Amino acid sequence: MAHRVLRFISDFFVYETAKSVVVKSWSVGIINRVVQLLIILYFICWVFMHEKGHQLRDTGIESAVMTKVKGLGKLNNRVMDVADYVVPSQGGSSFSIITNMVITANQTQGYCPETDNNYNCTNDDHCVKKLGSNLGNGIVTGKCLNNSDGTAGRCEIEGWCPAENDKVLGNPMNEVENFTIFIKNSIRFPLFDVTRGNFPSNIDKTYIKNCYYDPVNDPFCPIFKVGDILRHINQSLDNINDKGGEIGININWKCNLDYNVTDCNPTYFFTRLDAAFENSAASQGYNFRFAKYYQSADGTEHRTLHKAIAIRIEIIVSGNAGKFNSVPFLINLVAAFTSVGLATVFCDIILLNFHKGADEYKAKKFEEVSGVVSESANNRLYEGSQMSIKALEKKSNDSGTFSIGRQDPSNQ
Amino acid sequence: MAHRVLRFISDFFVYETAKSVVVKSWSVGIINRVVQLLIILYFICWVFMHEKGHQLRDTGIESAVMTKVKGLGKLNNRVMDVADYVVPSQGGSSFSIITNMVITANQTQGYCPETDNNYNCTNDDHCVKKLGSNLGNGIVTGKCLNNSDGTAGRCEIEGWCPAENDKVLGNPMNEVENFTIFIKNSIRFPLFDVTRGNFPSNIDKTYIKNCYYDPVNDPFCPIFKVGDILRHINQSLDNINDKGGEIGININWKCNLDYNVTDCNPTYFFTRLDAAFENSAASQGYNFRFAKYYQSADGTEHRTLHKAIAIRIEIIVSGNAGKFNSVPFLINLVAAFTSVGLATVFCDIILLNFHKGADEYKAKKFEEVSGVVSESANNRLYEGSQMSIKALEKKSNDSGTFSIGRQDPSNQ
Amino acid sequence: MAHRVLRFISDFFVYETAKSVVVKSWSVGIINRVVQLLIILYFICWVFMHEKGHQLRDTGIESAVMTKVKGLGKLNNRVMDVADYVVPSQGGSSFSIITNMVITANQTQGYCPETDNNYNCTNDDHCVKKLGSNLGNGIVTGKCLNNSDGTAGRCEIEGWCPAENDKVLGNPMNEVENFTIFIKNSIRFPLFDVTRGNFPSNIDKTYIKNCYYDPVNDPFCPIFKVGDILRHINQSLDNINDKGGEIGININWKCNLDYNVTDCNPTYFFTRLDAAFENSAASQGYNFRFAKYYQSADGTEHRTLHKAIAIRIEIIVSGNAGKFNSVPFLINLVAAFTSVGLATVFCDIILLNFHKGADEYKAKKFEEVSGVVSESANNRLYEGSQMSIKALEKKSNDSGTFSIGRQDPSNQ
Repeated sequence: MAHRVLRFISDFFVYETAKSVVVKSWSVGIINRVVQLLIILYFICWVFMHEKGHQLRDTGIESAVMTKVKGLGKLNNRVMDVADYVVPSQGGSSFSIITNMVITANQTQGYCPETDNNYNCTNDDHCVKKLGSNLGNGIVTGKCLNNSDGTAGRCEIEGWCPAENDKVLGNPMNEVENFTIFIKNSIRFPLFDVTRGNFPSNIDKTYIKNCYYDPVNDPFCPIFKVGDILRHINQSLDNINDKGGEIGININWKCNLDYNVTDCNPTYFFTRLDAAFENSAASQGYNFRFAKYYQSADGTEHRTLHKAIAIRIEIIVSGNAGKFNSVPFLINLVAAFTSVGLATVFCDIILLNFHKGADEYKAKKFEEVSGVVSESANNRLYEGSQMSIKALEKKSNDSGTFSIGRQDPSNQ
Repeated sequence: MAHRVLRFISDFFVYETAKSVVVKSWSVGIINRVVQLLIILYFICWVFMHEKGHQLRDTGIESAVMTKVKGLGKLNNRVMDVADYVVPSQGGSSFSIITNMVITANQTQGYCPETDNNYNCTNDDHCVKKLGSNLGNGIVTGKCLNNSDGTAGRCEIEGWCPAENDKVLGNPMNEVENFTIFIKNSIRFPLFDVTRGNFPSNIDKTYIKNCYYDPVNDPFCPIFKVGDILRHINQSLDNINDKGGEIGININWKCNLDYNVTDCNPTYFFTRLDAAFENSAASQGYNFRFAKYYQSADGTEHRTLHKAIAIRIEIIVSGNAGKFNSVPFLINLVAAFTSVGLATVFCDIILLNFHKGADEYKAKKFEEVSGVVSESANNRLYEGSQMSIKALEKKSNDSGTFSIGRQDPSNQ
Repeated sequence: MAHRVLRFISDFFVYETAKSVVVKSWSVGIINRVVQLLIILYFICWVFMHEKGHQLRDTGIESAVMTKVKGLGKLNNRVMDVADYVVPSQGGSSFSIITNMVITANQTQGYCPETDNNYNCTNDDHCVKKLGSNLGNGIVTGKCLNNSDGTAGRCEIEGWCPAENDKVLGNPMNEVENFTIFIKNSIRFPLFDVTRGNFPSNIDKTYIKNCYYDPVNDPFCPIFKVGDILRHINQSLDNINDKGGEIGININWKCNLDYNVTDCNPTYFFTRLDAAFENSAASQGYNFRFAKYYQSADGTEHRTLHKAIAIRIEIIVSGNAGKFNSVPFLINLVAAFTSVGLATVFCDIILLNFHKGADEYKAKKFEEVSGVVSESANNRLYEGSQMSIKALEKKSNDSGTFSIGRQDPSNQ
């Protein structure tokens, strides 16, 4: 019994390795080494240097963005400050700067004529057709109100009166060009517990009060002039002020934590987010409506409706960090070592098909064993035309095993 | 010296390849080719066609969403327009449509009885227990106010008075069913610098004013009727109007940029986002409170508190784009070629264990070399029971190398 | 012709497998098995148990968050409720709790002196220099207003007057410590169509009204006390109340859907999101400005400007789910089986270089075939120094094929 166990153990610790054929040929040898070199280069340059295959990567960036807009402008002869033109006011990662407004003051609930040309009418029938329309400023009652001046009338609506007439638009607030956006972006890579801000914490207080971001001269200044951003994305102020638009400020963190953590700094780039509709006939720009509500002394409510044309700004934070870690490093190292062996796949094709001595190589590389059943019948079938078979035909008079025996003496 | 260098170079450019055994057997041959075929099919169907393994993939989609709700409704005998019922007003990717409201007008700072039944009391002791409670409408003072009509009193609170009584709720704004949401979604794949909008820029202006999204007839119309959305997710208007709820409009971009870029269009689908709490006893629906602040002529501030029951709509953009790139294509092609070789792993198991001629195959496949140290002692140990050893026992009278020599004459 | 086709088919169904050398050596055998064991352990422990390589993974979590803050505080002798201190009011995933305010009441458009010390002046020249400044409360007119009390004057501004003086700050609303945040988070894994809420739908209604989240005792209670959160991230209330700050509540879903779906529950953790600027000289805390607008009886507009110091809370939902799927399981299983073969790469290095019987192994492992062209010239070159060549020198008198033949008799 003990003898059997011992035998089993000794059998278990046997080592199998592939038997190799060594080909002494300048041409194939050089091709082999060149292909191996290309594979090694691929791993060094692409897998390790470009893709950072030796690093563990944290893509779950946690980000917090705070913004503060500063600047003063004039719209409709009123001075506008931050509390007036930034919506919403909380200083988050997405906000709008109002650059123009259609203001319809002192609206109260009641009945009045629609302002839109689509609601022109000469009799009630025209207005009955518009019942249930969603596109007007109020609920169409079906009545046609004739104007006193003899021109065509307008349908009557129920709702906030007088109705807004958004065709009348004054000059935009061109001072927006000089407005500044201060961005405070704090990120964290939870895997490595690394926290970084978009500007160094030891930055000079007076510097930060006077600098403007510039990709070359002030890449770490967190204050962005709206005019500079527009210039970076080749947009004119007039165009965006006229219709409104949406601008993206991308903050990209790409950190190699194998270096000093202070080298982990963001890069900024800018995009016009609504670029797809730039030339659209149907829809351009960006605007929204909001109202301020007031109460008269007698308790009745009235409101001022604002149609705001605005520049919406979205701050988009993305990024990842990598740090050396033995697990991905070993996996890629093993992959690299074993991939070097793939050169043989390529070289075998050349060696067995396109090389002068192909037949001799085949004879050396392939050894034949026939199926045991109906051997004689099979053998007649297997005579033949195919690559490995040709090799075996050779073997019949210059067998792979014998050839070594015959060459050996000449090597001595 | 020159001779040594030359010899070293000539040694370096030697080519090694595995020596192969060729088995002529119908059964194993067919199994081998079938397994290889399955591997090739896996790569063609799964890796290349399904997973698009030949493409570089951009998953960092940049998206900008603008929305505009249109529609008019009546709530508490007042006509409500967009500026009244959409919160926040900026037309972003997340907004609420208020469908019902509990309005508590003319609140001023002061003292008054609580409205909630939990604050019933008959003497001050009941109210002292409630000190510090967060659940009421104001800070509990600890006093019990007895009602004049003889019923149980209520605890006194300090805060905005009179306190809200949210048990009184009128009819919801059922016109919400006909409201429309216009969605302008502009995306960009930064890797390929491809910008797309959710509707073609040459779309007809009159078409876009009159169409409604329909997955079959109008898949590119960017205007969604609230009632249609509810129908897509099998929700009744009454249910969502009663308690409020949250609806997701998913815009999914899956673009194959190997085709024409105009084929890169989004698909829409809809979900009830708060589905997990649909049957929850503790918490259902969606509501929030906000206040409008007024100032009297004498300068005192009062407010109107609104408890709004609303439909919150979130527009969620996701997607990725792929484009042919030689790097992933080559990597997967090499992986495919080398994986074909894995068929041998499977076939070897069959050949060496379950095939009739297994012993002969083993003899051909395995060649033995014993450890140099204590050879005679080892050899006795290695006699035996294990697979590879059995093969070697065979070899003793029908050696792997000899058998070829013996078969060769019969092949001639 | 039929014969040729038959022959081609028979040639096609030939099976090739690598010829192996079996080494009977305790040392190498044990090393081989140990390396194989390590590879198997790597796959079992890392790939399958840690990385869940047998599962299909859904990382596109869809999430909806609703929040409700409760609590009452006192600020500037006014009772503040949710409608007063939560901005924005809609109960989304990002909101601010105002803890202190600088209130500048009754501002109207006009001219008045600046309040900031940077705008001190003794004559107009000082103020002309400030023209176009963005940092003040209004547009600098260039005039210097001399104070009546003889001290240095201030530059005149045009804008909302009187200008804000944010140096005067009262006591913060310390009751914020006891405020509670109720979080309703509904998620969906679209790939598996699994919907989950952050608390069980059968949770007790009275339990949910009285519980507070605690990582040990109440891990499923969705109500978070602000004071508890601050304690979890080691922040003092005074610090955050003084300057404002940003707190992240991370909800992490990591679901193994091979188990019961009711085991798919979130874990919560908390971070100070603006940690990067904690010690920054230039910028600390979080504040924003907003205004409430009023209209006098005569129709003139005035506003009350609020500079709010606030705690901003961001609810960040992340996670993924895995479920057994045959495709990744099979891919990793095949990878595991084939990787076991990598042990030979390591063992060959030992066997051929560091083992006593290295030369004999080389002779068995390598078989030589020389290039056909200029054979005699080449053979002289290939004599030699390199590993595989040495093996072949050995072979000349103790050929790999012969050695088996010679050992065989002794095995009989």
